[in-house]
Amino acid sequence: MNSIKIIANGSYLPKYKLENKELNKKYNLEEGWIEKRSGIKTRYYALDETIEEMATKAAINTIKKTKIDIQKIGAIIVTTTSTDKLMPGISYLIQKKLDIKKCMCFDILAGCSGYINAFDIARKYIIAEEIEYVLIVGVEKISKYIDDKDIGTKILLGDGAGATLIGKASKEKIYEKNIESFGQEGEILKCDSNSSLYMNGKEIYKFGITKTVENIQKLLEKSNTSIEDIKYIVPHQSNLRIIENMAKKLNIKKEKIYINIQKIGNTFNASIPIALEELTKSNKIKENDKIVLIGYGGGLNLGSILLEF
Amino acid sequence: MNSIKIIANGSYLPKYKLENKELNKKYNLEEGWIEKRSGIKTRYYALDETIEEMATKAAINTIKKTKIDIQKIGAIIVTTTSTDKLMPGISYLIQKKLDIKKCMCFDILAGCSGYINAFDIARKYIIAEEIEYVLIVGVEKISKYIDDKDIGTKILLGDGAGATLIGKASKEKIYEKNIESFGQEGEILKCDSNSSLYMNGKEIYKFGITKTVENIQKLLEKSNTSIEDIKYIVPHQSNLRIIENMAKKLNIKKEKIYINIQKIGNTFNASIPIALEELTKSNKIKENDKIVLIGYGGGLNLGSILLEF
Repeated sequence: MNSIKIIANGSYLPKYKLENKELNKKYNLEEGWIEKRSGIKTRYYALDETIEEMATKAAINTIKKTKIDIQKIGAIIVTTTSTDKLMPGISYLIQKKLDIKKCMCFDILAGCSGYINAFDIARKYIIAEEIEYVLIVGVEKISKYIDDKDIGTKILLGDGAGATLIGKASKEKIYEKNIESFGQEGEILKCDSNSSLYMNGKEIYKFGITKTVENIQKLLEKSNTSIEDIKYIVPHQSNLRIIENMAKKLNIKKEKIYINIQKIGNTFNASIPIALEELTKSNKIKENDKIVLIGYGGGLNLGSILLEF
Repeated sequence: MNSIKIIANGSYLPKYKLENKELNKKYNLEEGWIEKRSGIKTRYYALDETIEEMATKAAINTIKKTKIDIQKIGAIIVTTTSTDKLMPGISYLIQKKLDIKKCMCFDILAGCSGYINAFDIARKYIIAEEIEYVLIVGVEKISKYIDDKDIGTKILLGDGAGATLIGKASKEKIYEKNIESFGQEGEILKCDSNSSLYMNGKEIYKFGITKTVENIQKLLEKSNTSIEDIKYIVPHQSNLRIIENMAKKLNIKKEKIYINIQKIGNTFNASIPIALEELTKSNKIKENDKIVLIGYGGGLNLGSILLEF
């Protein structure tokens, strides 16, 4: 059985940093309220930057960490919930900018956790030896869809892009995944291209701390792995309170969960790859360490991946 | 090696039928000009029908031809270029309507030929024995993006949905594919969610009769198959003139190419599954017959699949 590995991670955050103090002033909020509620201190907005510019910059920041021949990138998969690029999709715009000649491109819409779907699809093409490297880019310009009057949503979300280059591992690595969708419950998180985002915070909170934990437990069971064998959990950064409750329910220390929501807010599909970049850069992960990625969000969509480094 | 087969095909066309005579009147066109230029006599528009309604109807029309337990459908993949459903995607809305409990859902944006990408991804999950049945739905409400002053585009396009249910074959079947993207040439066919569709007809024509033929020739070469061994080619129905030229360049009779553009126009991602449904219904295909699907369009995206029935 072939195995895959992460070759490199990269990210891009737009120029404009929105701090809590600015939101406090705008909405007349009590100092410390936003952080207490969400854990978030700052987030970034793409004001005059396009979604494809952010995606391309994250792609370039990833590739320049490697010495691979970019013509060997056989697929670019973009995951987003905030694209206006119906055709060509963002993946094609990245292909054009990087001038990759032979490549398969597509964009995936699968809620906030499309990155997990893209990762699993990418793996299939690599283990089939059809493609040498796959570039996955999670990107959001979700600020465009925020209703300025919806304070609860406004304080949480941020724009950004994260990318992951995946290739074949030279030796066997553990891999397992558990991906499931719940269209029946999709009403709690919605966004149409011509309307604002709607979030039922209370229901999303419930979903975020129950279904995610059950999903991870099933993943561990499927792979015959104990939670103690996992070095880090890298979750979708939706809300610090959700992540803390996840830790409690999994009966693990909060430190075992990689958290960077304080700095960038909830960036939907960009959140896992951005967190992965930070985690790998920090040297906290070494070869053979096992991590779990867990994505959840609109759709509803939910998915986790167990990965050996 | 596991193999896949098409279990059932289905489609849905919206209620409103737009005939050439109506367009002739509106644009003061010469009788017969539209048909001469494109081969198209009628097309359908979704006036008060939503994109998810069309997609769901095509899905239901497919499933009701089978006796499968729908809870065994492990994935729903929707391909489109004209969605306004950023979250939940159309695939989740189908899951909800059909009330499928355990399912993986995502929508793909990959130009007019996303159906080919979806088919190949679906196959990977089936041959890995992770999923029993995959439902693919190609759906377009492209009429929404037509600039009413753009006569060249207006006469060509139509709305609709086509679906294909794929499952495991009980014996080995030939399968090959050749999927490639050309983001560098993407400027010739564009659509943003807040603007009208742009088509450079001349350049698309050129793309449609050169790159498609090269792609099919490469597919046949890869699978060591001669064009004589192919019972039917089922192409994306973009323009009758493109399809006729494709036949000429492949040195085959036009009758070997399945054509239904006369009745429904160019329905982008819906075109191949709708054509497949008609072809299979016509009893022109029997077990072990080989067919080629060829998709091409915005991105630019291009892909073909060789399939044994």
